[in-house]
Amino acid sequence: MKLYESKAAPNARRVRIFLHEKNINGIEFVQLDLQGGENLTKEFKAKNPLAKIPVLELDDGTAISESMAICKYFDELNPEKSLFGSSPLEKALIEQWQRRIELSLLMPTGMCFQHTSGYFKDRMNVFPEWGQECGNNVKKFLTFLDKHLASSPYIAGDEFSVADISALVTIDFNRINNIQIEDTQENLKRWYSDVSSRPSAKA
Amino acid sequence: MKLYESKAAPNARRVRIFLHEKNINGIEFVQLDLQGGENLTKEFKAKNPLAKIPVLELDDGTAISESMAICKYFDELNPEKSLFGSSPLEKALIEQWQRRIELSLLMPTGMCFQHTSGYFKDRMNVFPEWGQECGNNVKKFLTFLDKHLASSPYIAGDEFSVADISALVTIDFNRINNIQIEDTQENLKRWYSDVSSRPSAKA
Repeated sequence: MKLYESKAAPNARRVRIFLHEKNINGIEFVQLDLQGGENLTKEFKAKNPLAKIPVLELDDGTAISESMAICKYFDELNPEKSLFGSSPLEKALIEQWQRRIELSLLMPTGMCFQHTSGYFKDRMNVFPEWGQECGNNVKKFLTFLDKHLASSPYIAGDEFSVADISALVTIDFNRINNIQIEDTQENLKRWYSDVSSRPSAKA
Repeated sequence: MKLYESKAAPNARRVRIFLHEKNINGIEFVQLDLQGGENLTKEFKAKNPLAKIPVLELDDGTAISESMAICKYFDELNPEKSLFGSSPLEKALIEQWQRRIELSLLMPTGMCFQHTSGYFKDRMNVFPEWGQECGNNVKKFLTFLDKHLASSPYIAGDEFSVADISALVTIDFNRINNIQIEDTQENLKRWYSDVSSRPSAKA
């Protein structure tokens, strides 16, 4: 199996942390230079027509795009200690938090970066005021998350889950947006210290 | 069980279609007037602090937010004919397409509506040019989807799945953005005719 990815891309890091947590090895990592456009080649678009990384290529050539689809695939093949939950209610509540993190934290983080840095301005229209608004929304969501973590050890409850991976990766990526956890956000700081000291966080 | 929702909201319709497809009955539907702010009350925010619908309330008072988390919950309780797939690869490919539909179709559709109509301008900052850009991105994705459906009966392959529900609901909602399937998009028209004639589409 080959995983096409980029060291600096947050979605790719979500998959690497997931694989580390599940103790899954033996995958060949192929680095793509995104700003150099290595994801825009005809060859790569045959694997993912939307030209996004990460992409998992199985030995028979089947390609799976979208980081959470890739994680789900590995989780289904290795169901012990699922990071997506076990009972129907657990699965639903992890999915709920995963979506909250993605829609209210990861998405605005990505748009803030794209629209304020102009990093991909050769291939998209950029609206800097919208990017700033997204940055403000990221800060608001961190306030909400700090409150939530006052009564919850991890994002989705008592157990570490994919929602924690998504939140950790997004918060780390926000350095590039000059957004970080505030010194007064004690619960968020406690949670961040916990999850970022897991060996998988180095992935 | 109670489902707090709104007849006109696309995410709420995703859940209603899902329930119809799975033949799940006996749920009490509670309508909220979103523009009137019935989702912004203290009482509702105790169910979902992010003030979004739909929310499923279980008989013990547990609340589950996010439409796909709610669908996942029902799918896990009623696993026959899962709309999320059966084998690990099937699950991964449905998740991949579900995410593509959500990230590249549903999200820009929602932002186009919010930023060009000003429907919620009492509670958010509006950037009309960004809304128009999102509308253009919706049209581009429909072109991509038409091409994809030339070789695929349903969005994620040979079987109807949650990805079809998400795409149908989003395309129907785009009437409000004045975006529709082009007359030349034959594959998309064939697919739309198929899925919109299922009895569940009336939900």
